[in-house]
Amino acid sequence: MSHPTLLATRFLSARDAVELVRRDGLAPTLSGIARCIEDDFRRWPAFDKAARVASHSRDGVIELMPIADGQRYSFKYVNGHPRNTRLGLPTVMAFGVLADVATGAPTLVSELTLTTALRTAATSVVAARRLVRPDSRVMALIGNGAQSEFQALAFHHLLGIDTLRLYDVDPQATAKLVRNLAGTALRVVVCQNTADAVRGADIVTTLTADKTNATILHADMLAPGQHINAVGGDCPGKTELAASVLRAGRVFVEYEPQTRIEGDLQQMPPDFAVTELWQVLTGEAAGRQHPDEITVFDSVGFALEDFSALRHLQEAAQRHGLGQPLDLIPTPKDPKNLFGTLAADGPGACCVTVAPQPETQHAA
Amino acid sequence: MSHPTLLATRFLSARDAVELVRRDGLAPTLSGIARCIEDDFRRWPAFDKAARVASHSRDGVIELMPIADGQRYSFKYVNGHPRNTRLGLPTVMAFGVLADVATGAPTLVSELTLTTALRTAATSVVAARRLVRPDSRVMALIGNGAQSEFQALAFHHLLGIDTLRLYDVDPQATAKLVRNLAGTALRVVVCQNTADAVRGADIVTTLTADKTNATILHADMLAPGQHINAVGGDCPGKTELAASVLRAGRVFVEYEPQTRIEGDLQQMPPDFAVTELWQVLTGEAAGRQHPDEITVFDSVGFALEDFSALRHLQEAAQRHGLGQPLDLIPTPKDPKNLFGTLAADGPGACCVTVAPQPETQHAA
Repeated sequence: MSHPTLLATRFLSARDAVELVRRDGLAPTLSGIARCIEDDFRRWPAFDKAARVASHSRDGVIELMPIADGQRYSFKYVNGHPRNTRLGLPTVMAFGVLADVATGAPTLVSELTLTTALRTAATSVVAARRLVRPDSRVMALIGNGAQSEFQALAFHHLLGIDTLRLYDVDPQATAKLVRNLAGTALRVVVCQNTADAVRGADIVTTLTADKTNATILHADMLAPGQHINAVGGDCPGKTELAASVLRAGRVFVEYEPQTRIEGDLQQMPPDFAVTELWQVLTGEAAGRQHPDEITVFDSVGFALEDFSALRHLQEAAQRHGLGQPLDLIPTPKDPKNLFGTLAADGPGACCVTVAPQPETQHAA
Repeated sequence: MSHPTLLATRFLSARDAVELVRRDGLAPTLSGIARCIEDDFRRWPAFDKAARVASHSRDGVIELMPIADGQRYSFKYVNGHPRNTRLGLPTVMAFGVLADVATGAPTLVSELTLTTALRTAATSVVAARRLVRPDSRVMALIGNGAQSEFQALAFHHLLGIDTLRLYDVDPQATAKLVRNLAGTALRVVVCQNTADAVRGADIVTTLTADKTNATILHADMLAPGQHINAVGGDCPGKTELAASVLRAGRVFVEYEPQTRIEGDLQQMPPDFAVTELWQVLTGEAAGRQHPDEITVFDSVGFALEDFSALRHLQEAAQRHGLGQPLDLIPTPKDPKNLFGTLAADGPGACCVTVAPQPETQHAA
């Protein structure tokens, strides 16, 4: 009577996700995720959207990011604890779930720590394709932490960036990034400060992690025609850009209600004009309009990107036969008889600890 | 440099949860969960609370229920799809996570389908202990579906109920409940309709699952001194009680902002007075005040109850050595070097598919 196949939850571990990237290659993986993200943003109205639900504490934040279309539901669990590295832990850890909207059954539980870095970089590229000058080759990368390699390689492989100008307040972070990029075709220039890094860049990616209202980038550092890919400012009280940067160009966002709360946009008045990315992707709104324009992608990370990444992971895992079954949901013989799962030999023989007593009686 | 022990996520499967109940016994398990729930409700102000986040679709709803105190964060994923049984699937499926607030690391991923039934029944008893007449022995059980055995046995073992008066629109559901209660000390009376079942009952538990504005219970069915334990009406458009029932007595709720949206309370004006359960448990508000009073617990299920249940599960799993490690979060040697997890033999040897080219260059 029960249908265990409808209830087959697959688990994709942290190791499985690494193995998927190894088998498909990093560039094709980024490309595959970017394709899913673009496809899903283009059918924006089909999604039931909400700003993520955040639980803030002294040292960080834990968030849930749900979204659904008519067929699939997904959510991501993700934290942000800037001081975690002192304990030997990642700053950002994440996992997520895909479920079937028609039944509510979870079909995939997956690591999303590595995948968050991949999907964030892929999203940056999806936006940049419509917002950078076509001749862009040089990118400044301000903040050289855990996500920086992914941004660097996504812009290299998917957008043709050949030169990086790097800066981080922590020289060890930059040294790590340089080491990790050795063996790629990227030309890497280590800079002494943000202004230095930004000089001559076609694209400026900001990727800093401190939970403070920082202003690492000012309008007077910018040159006409630059695209700002602002990725690090992503929760209330955590910004990277001076208001002057947002005023210097046209500002593009993922999901306006969330970015007003979490993005660099949080410092601007509520009527400050922005354009949602999906409108550019569908052609409803213009991307870059002339070569001298400054464009700003105020990226905070939206649930739709994880939905797309989980779709990609599910397809790739299936293709490679990776992942394993997870006994997450009980499958009683009769779905109306949950109590029967406690029975050793059928529903009657339950595990009640009180001994049967003679006055037991059934009356019609 | 990394601390994998801080990142040890344990997985408690559906089978593990059954095994825990078998080893500890059902009554002690219900009792242990009830103790955790009462302890946590009594420290109500310590929790960061929010109404759950629901995604509604044609056939059902998928919800996320997060909550945190200063130390621990939890959330539950739960669906409600009344027509699922036609596909051989449970109506309600759930799982949940406990995490460390200080680091954001998930420490437990657990089944919560069986556990939701246990914690719902335990919560009903925690409320009933303060709201029923002390001489209560007879409970009417309207709706004999998947959760009914748990309510029946919780009230039997933890509150001394010895007689059940059963009614369900589906006689097969009642027959299943009767079978599952065979071998217990409960006296069971199968009734022909709701009015018949309610007659002579000290407690009336309503546990119906249809996603409709139903009114299965009217004030003219009630007798002085009865306690109404209304469990089935738990989302917008899903009610069980006539407004006259809520007006007939004092109404108690778990978390007022959520119950105003989801509970039978949704049909009442916004200023209709209710008392939150935690206030009764701490003594700030009175429970039952005299033997003839009618009391109503308009229960919708609150995140705190899952937090408590997860605490109990974690402790019990540890005590019995059940559960297994889950490779959910990557543990890079250097937590600042997430990209290093992609390396086969250290961070340098990454999986980039484009071949190295001669113009690679590092500049200081």
